[in-house]
Amino acid sequence: MEFSAKQIAELLNGKIIGDSDIKVSTVSKIEEGFAGSLSFLSNPKYIQYLYTTKSSIVLINNSFVPEKEVQSTLIKVEDAYHAFASLLEIYNQQKSHKEGISGDSIIEDSAKIGEHVYIGANSYIGANSLIGDQTKIYPNTYIGDNVKIGNKVIIFSGANIYSDCIIKDGCTLHSGVVVGSDGFGFAPQNASEFKKVPQIGNVIIEESVEIGANTTIDRATLGSTIIRKGVKLDNLIQVAHNVEIGENTVIAAQTGIAGSTKIGKNCMIGGQVAIAGHITIADNVKAGAKAGIAQSVKKEGVILQGIPAIELRNFWRSAAVFKLLPDMKHQIDNLERIIGKEKGE
Amino acid sequence: MEFSAKQIAELLNGKIIGDSDIKVSTVSKIEEGFAGSLSFLSNPKYIQYLYTTKSSIVLINNSFVPEKEVQSTLIKVEDAYHAFASLLEIYNQQKSHKEGISGDSIIEDSAKIGEHVYIGANSYIGANSLIGDQTKIYPNTYIGDNVKIGNKVIIFSGANIYSDCIIKDGCTLHSGVVVGSDGFGFAPQNASEFKKVPQIGNVIIEESVEIGANTTIDRATLGSTIIRKGVKLDNLIQVAHNVEIGENTVIAAQTGIAGSTKIGKNCMIGGQVAIAGHITIADNVKAGAKAGIAQSVKKEGVILQGIPAIELRNFWRSAAVFKLLPDMKHQIDNLERIIGKEKGE
Amino acid sequence: MEFSAKQIAELLNGKIIGDSDIKVSTVSKIEEGFAGSLSFLSNPKYIQYLYTTKSSIVLINNSFVPEKEVQSTLIKVEDAYHAFASLLEIYNQQKSHKEGISGDSIIEDSAKIGEHVYIGANSYIGANSLIGDQTKIYPNTYIGDNVKIGNKVIIFSGANIYSDCIIKDGCTLHSGVVVGSDGFGFAPQNASEFKKVPQIGNVIIEESVEIGANTTIDRATLGSTIIRKGVKLDNLIQVAHNVEIGENTVIAAQTGIAGSTKIGKNCMIGGQVAIAGHITIADNVKAGAKAGIAQSVKKEGVILQGIPAIELRNFWRSAAVFKLLPDMKHQIDNLERIIGKEKGE
Repeated sequence: MEFSAKQIAELLNGKIIGDSDIKVSTVSKIEEGFAGSLSFLSNPKYIQYLYTTKSSIVLINNSFVPEKEVQSTLIKVEDAYHAFASLLEIYNQQKSHKEGISGDSIIEDSAKIGEHVYIGANSYIGANSLIGDQTKIYPNTYIGDNVKIGNKVIIFSGANIYSDCIIKDGCTLHSGVVVGSDGFGFAPQNASEFKKVPQIGNVIIEESVEIGANTTIDRATLGSTIIRKGVKLDNLIQVAHNVEIGENTVIAAQTGIAGSTKIGKNCMIGGQVAIAGHITIADNVKAGAKAGIAQSVKKEGVILQGIPAIELRNFWRSAAVFKLLPDMKHQIDNLERIIGKEKGE
Repeated sequence: MEFSAKQIAELLNGKIIGDSDIKVSTVSKIEEGFAGSLSFLSNPKYIQYLYTTKSSIVLINNSFVPEKEVQSTLIKVEDAYHAFASLLEIYNQQKSHKEGISGDSIIEDSAKIGEHVYIGANSYIGANSLIGDQTKIYPNTYIGDNVKIGNKVIIFSGANIYSDCIIKDGCTLHSGVVVGSDGFGFAPQNASEFKKVPQIGNVIIEESVEIGANTTIDRATLGSTIIRKGVKLDNLIQVAHNVEIGENTVIAAQTGIAGSTKIGKNCMIGGQVAIAGHITIADNVKAGAKAGIAQSVKKEGVILQGIPAIELRNFWRSAAVFKLLPDMKHQIDNLERIIGKEKGE
Repeated sequence: MEFSAKQIAELLNGKIIGDSDIKVSTVSKIEEGFAGSLSFLSNPKYIQYLYTTKSSIVLINNSFVPEKEVQSTLIKVEDAYHAFASLLEIYNQQKSHKEGISGDSIIEDSAKIGEHVYIGANSYIGANSLIGDQTKIYPNTYIGDNVKIGNKVIIFSGANIYSDCIIKDGCTLHSGVVVGSDGFGFAPQNASEFKKVPQIGNVIIEESVEIGANTTIDRATLGSTIIRKGVKLDNLIQVAHNVEIGENTVIAAQTGIAGSTKIGKNCMIGGQVAIAGHITIADNVKAGAKAGIAQSVKKEGVILQGIPAIELRNFWRSAAVFKLLPDMKHQIDNLERIIGKEKGE
């Protein structure tokens, strides 16, 4: 896709200084600009780069007046940063504009497909499944039987959605995501063998959830594993059966949540955190990377760190002393020797 | 699928009290019952819900006599919990009853396919591979060349089985599982570059193993990476080359096992555990979540925790003191000051 | 594939002692030899097995003279270990010799495909993408639009490469790898909701990189996430947006690297390590398994361990004392009691 300075200025309601016919096909940081790219200048720290950048077009604030000659075509707008962010969104929407049902997809007869959808090649839609309007399903994706997918959902290539799961409007699932795999439930059958407990629940993913690449969400044993509205999950996260994650909670990569745990709203959980099963985490809780949360957290808004996790300020105090442990041991042994000597031992 | 009270009573050898024609299509907890669902009552704590539940059918013990009026149709059985568990299994089998070879699957001519199999759309079966009887291979799955898959195996959508691997009877592999990828073996070639060591072994997965979504099991450099009979692996686990996991060992999500390590029988390993390479873990060992096992564990049945892992009771004693470290440091400095003062320093 | 002793001796420029017509179809360790397998003897510790092995062919050093009768056919070579390694490579190349474009792959018209490629069934190649010469793309793989893949690249089944990414010559990507998924970037929109920041950069993977199964590499917000020449990544690793990993750095399984971090050359990072975002790691740094690196590491060549990570020798000293913490606490309390008593408190 190519855009001229003129087209961009019209989109952004901006004023061109320079060549209105110059074209760009991508964006770049101003300090890494090149012919054909568009950049923006907002932070005063970067002003120096305006005079040396190779970017074909630079968005600048109306209020900004260059002090030297500029090679790039400038577009003056009210707020260069916001204008740039708007452009990115338009660019992204154009780039991912896909529509139509590939003749190389396999759709069971009983599935119902909405309007203006994209269903890519080699994808499979199972019996009785529903695909909402303007939803995009990229190639090589598997949608099982009786799955309900809402409107404006994007499912990238190679995702796997097991039967009976529900994905509501506006969600984005990245490649390799697995939704609805069996929960890890096995009952001891005798001294040593295990028998599988049937996992016949499902997964419900509410509106505007984003799920990162290769993240796995198990179906409930009974009932539903639930990801509430607005939750953002990064890559390679494990969500076990019967977990519930509260609205707008954000979780970084490689974190794992064991079975039947309920996480509150607006929590921020770092990467590689482990959260035990059958516990409850209050709203607004934060957990640092690698924390191990073994017990319920009842106090809203606390910040946790460490294994087992304790409040952050205590953790850092203890962690600082951890480095001093060999010295402390030495101090104590020394004190004992002195005291012992004084007592004539 | 719909079942009438009559059909269910016949399956369970139970006695109907109420409407024998009423139909259910799913199951629910008794406290979350709704029209069309079946529940059970076993735990006396839940008796109160029997009189308010909206479930169409409730299984109860023969010995139980309701004290108030009940809206639901009841089916009296010897043991309501076991009857329910049996029903779940029947339900699950029916739900996943798939048979037939999709015309949209690609099967190399030299592959041999057993009887009563399911091979879904867009799946690929490589040259000389064998697929046993009653095995189900869901859509979008890849089976490489010379792979041997036994009877009654279930491989869910999007799994990838590399060439030469062996999967025995009764195994279940979830979506996104990778079996037989190259072990991580690189020999330093000069000061800084690495050269790949060819990985020409395979993976053997014995009977009745279950492997969770997106778990990866690398092929051996030479010989076999072996997952013994009855092992249960959760999601996102890493099993490196030449590892052997003993019978009926259970491992929770996101745990990693480095190369050539041998884990005993009947072990229970928590989530996000790291187990070093080239070590041996005895039978019946347990490891808590996030443990880091750096050395061989020779004592059977020990429980480990911490990084590096130590015996659990010692870990908790030390972890409890960890919180007190800043105070301890203060105590020690104080003692030194007192002692120093007394000595006139 | 079967090879006779004669064929192998010719390949290795070796001398046969025994049956030059005997055939082998695989390799094994000498102590696990069987009819039809080839082994080698290099380490003197294994000499005993030469006289009992069931291997059909054994490679031995020219300098070695058996002291007892040997059942196997021997092939004498200059260096048995190196000869074996060469054979493995030849064997591996033969085994994975795939060529041709499957009629069951979907290739958009505007894609350009090199010579002597393999493109397996059910794979998808997007618009304007380039596939280099001698590159192999296994079945069920997804290549998005505008992707550039070099020569002699191997992409195993079920990998997903998003649009605009670049993969240079000689790389190997294993099954389930995701390259170019959106970075985890969300801007707080109001008190509690998050709005996605468009991720319009790409991923560049330089020459001779190997990426393990189910590893995920996010595209940059702007610019590129970069994996430099010769990097080796194990399975289930997370590489966030705008990360750069330096030449020949090796990273073990399940490690995660947060956004915008830059890792130096020739580093060796263990498994399950977490590396914070927006930091810089110097060249030649080593990090032990499970380390948590929270701050930039400026000193080249240091070895790190622990959470938060400190230098290894300090970590082990502190970790050793960690086990003594309950005793230390007891010692201190005891000392306080003694001192207190002496002072008449």
